[in-house]
Amino acid sequence: MKKLINDPKSVVIEMCQGMVKAFPENLALDEEFMVISRKNPNKNKVNLISGGGSGHEPAHAGFVGRGMLDAAVCGDVFASPSVMQVFNAIKHNHSEQGVLLVIKNYSGDVMNFESAAAMAEDYDIRVDSVCVNDDISIEKKEDRRGVAGTIFVHKIAGALAERGASLKQVKEIAQRVIDNVRTMGIALTSCTVPARGKPTFDLEEDKIEVGVGIHGEAGIFRDRLLSAKETAELIIERILGELSVSKDEEVAVLVNGFGGTPLQELFILNNEVATILNSKGIAVAKTLVGNYMTSIDMEGASISVLMLDEQMKRLLSAPCETAAWKETEA
Amino acid sequence: MKKLINDPKSVVIEMCQGMVKAFPENLALDEEFMVISRKNPNKNKVNLISGGGSGHEPAHAGFVGRGMLDAAVCGDVFASPSVMQVFNAIKHNHSEQGVLLVIKNYSGDVMNFESAAAMAEDYDIRVDSVCVNDDISIEKKEDRRGVAGTIFVHKIAGALAERGASLKQVKEIAQRVIDNVRTMGIALTSCTVPARGKPTFDLEEDKIEVGVGIHGEAGIFRDRLLSAKETAELIIERILGELSVSKDEEVAVLVNGFGGTPLQELFILNNEVATILNSKGIAVAKTLVGNYMTSIDMEGASISVLMLDEQMKRLLSAPCETAAWKETEA
Repeated sequence: MKKLINDPKSVVIEMCQGMVKAFPENLALDEEFMVISRKNPNKNKVNLISGGGSGHEPAHAGFVGRGMLDAAVCGDVFASPSVMQVFNAIKHNHSEQGVLLVIKNYSGDVMNFESAAAMAEDYDIRVDSVCVNDDISIEKKEDRRGVAGTIFVHKIAGALAERGASLKQVKEIAQRVIDNVRTMGIALTSCTVPARGKPTFDLEEDKIEVGVGIHGEAGIFRDRLLSAKETAELIIERILGELSVSKDEEVAVLVNGFGGTPLQELFILNNEVATILNSKGIAVAKTLVGNYMTSIDMEGASISVLMLDEQMKRLLSAPCETAAWKETEA
Repeated sequence: MKKLINDPKSVVIEMCQGMVKAFPENLALDEEFMVISRKNPNKNKVNLISGGGSGHEPAHAGFVGRGMLDAAVCGDVFASPSVMQVFNAIKHNHSEQGVLLVIKNYSGDVMNFESAAAMAEDYDIRVDSVCVNDDISIEKKEDRRGVAGTIFVHKIAGALAERGASLKQVKEIAQRVIDNVRTMGIALTSCTVPARGKPTFDLEEDKIEVGVGIHGEAGIFRDRLLSAKETAELIIERILGELSVSKDEEVAVLVNGFGGTPLQELFILNNEVATILNSKGIAVAKTLVGNYMTSIDMEGASISVLMLDEQMKRLLSAPCETAAWKETEA
C-alpha cells in the first residue's frame, strides 16, 4: 500500500486535525467524539448534523459552515460512527429550534443516528431526521444507499435553516431534495482502506464496475471500459427513467469524482452530461464538478441529477461558507 | 490505459467545453485558440493572462474570474501553447491599462509567451510579464520550474489588478510573490498522458520520487516510502532554508494534490506542516489544501510556502469568484 500517511490506525484523527488546522477560523474539532463543528455556532436556527464513516472527504466535515451543516460526525474509515459519537454531536450542537439529522441510508448509520436521536430526546432535545437514498444502482427503494446526492440535502436544507425556518420546514425541504435527486456511479479501480492495506475488490484492466457504491461495494454489473459519452448516456438514461423531468424544467447536476479521478476526466464527463440534457431540452441551472463524496482513492465518478423547483433553486445558490462549497452573494 | 475519456486526441477541447458548460455565467471558450476567458470581461483594469500546457487542472482556467485571471491559454497536455494561441489570448483580453502575462518557467512557455508579447506590442498593446520559478528541487535558480506557487501569483496580483492598480504596480506585486514563494513536491506514482497511454516513468512499489516536476519530470532522488511527517519535515526544512522566515512572521501554505491523491492524505500532510511551522513560531495566515496544480492522475503532493507582508496578506483574502478558488467578502 502506497499512501502519504503516518499510521493506518490514526488516519481519521490526523485528517480531522489537519482539516481544522486548514480552516481554524471556521471549524472546531471535538477529539473525544470526532465531531467537527462550526467554530462560531449559530444557536438561533435549526441545527443540521450529518456524518458517517470517513473516507468520503470532503464529505461531510467539508460541508460544515455557514449556510450548510452545523456539525459532522466522523466515524472510522467506512464505518458508522457510534451512538455515543452521534449523541455527543447532538448534545453539543443543538438549539431551541431543534436538530435535523441527515443520515445516509446504511443500516449501521440509520441504527446509530436513530438511537442517538432517541437518547437526545430523553434530554429534551428536539431531534428529527431524514434518510438519503439516492443511489439508483439498487432496485429496491428501501435498500438504496445514500451517496453523492446527499450534499444537495446539506446545501438546500442548510440554506433554509440559516434563514430561520422551523424544524418542520427544514425537514420538509430536505425530504423534497431526497425525493428529487438520483445518483449512479462507475468505478475504474477499487479503493484501498488504509487499515486493510489492499484493494477492496479486483477489477480487470479492461473492465469497469457499473453501479458501484461509495465504499467499494460491488456494482450491478461489469462492463468493458466505456467512453465518457457512453458512461454519461448509460447513467443519465437510468436517472431520467426515474425522475420525470419534462422539457424546460430545471435541474442541478453533480459530476462527482471518487478521489483518484483527474479533474480533466470529470470535465469531459460533464461535457457529455450537459450535451445530453441540452438535447432533451432540460435546463441545467447549476453544475458542480469535482471531488465531493469520494471513496478514498477510487478512480471513477458518479453523476447526480436533482430536479429543481423555484425554492430549491434559490436555496442552492444562497451564500454558504464551508471548506468544500462556497457560494458568494449574487 | 484506463481513463474516463472519449479519445486521447480530443481531451483538451472536450475538457475545456465541459468546464465552460459547468460555469456558463462566468466563463467563455474561444475554441479556435483554446482560450478560456471571463464571460463578462473587465476592460477597466490591467488584464492578467496565464496558461501553459494542459493536464494541471484546475490550473489555469479554473482561476479565471473576478479577482484572479482574465484569461487562460490551454496548450495540449503538457505542451506549451503556440505563439498564435497566446497572441490571440492577448488580442482578445487586453485593456488600455495593459496586460500582465504570468508565465511558468519552462523554455517553451517563456519563448512562446514572450514572442506573443512582442507581436502584441506591434499592435500597440501594452504587455509585460513575470516568470514563476518556485520549484526548489532544481538548484540553479534560472532553471527552476514554475509549479503550484503560481496560483498565489494569480490570486494576489489578480486582486490588486481588480482594485485598479497600474500595470507597474501589478507586475511589482506579482514579482514580490514570486520572490517569496517556494515549492517542493514528491510523487508516489507517475502520471499517464492520454496520448501516450502509459506512465511517464516507473516507480518501484516501495519508492517515492522526491523533487518531482508537474509533468512527471524526474525528481532529485528516490527515497523509500516516507511517512506524512517525514515528507513534511523534508520539504519544510528545504523551503525554510531558502526563505528567511523569522519567528512571528506570517506565511500562506498550499498543500497541493497532484490529481490522484485522496483528500484525506492531503489533510494529514497539512496537519504535519502546520505542526512544524507552529513549533517554529511561524504563523499560518492562510491555508489551502486540495488539487490546485495537478499532474493529471499522479499520486503525490507538493507543499508551497509564501512569506507574507501586510499587503499580500490582505490581497490573498480579497474576494474572488473562480471555478477553483472562491473568497467571500470578509
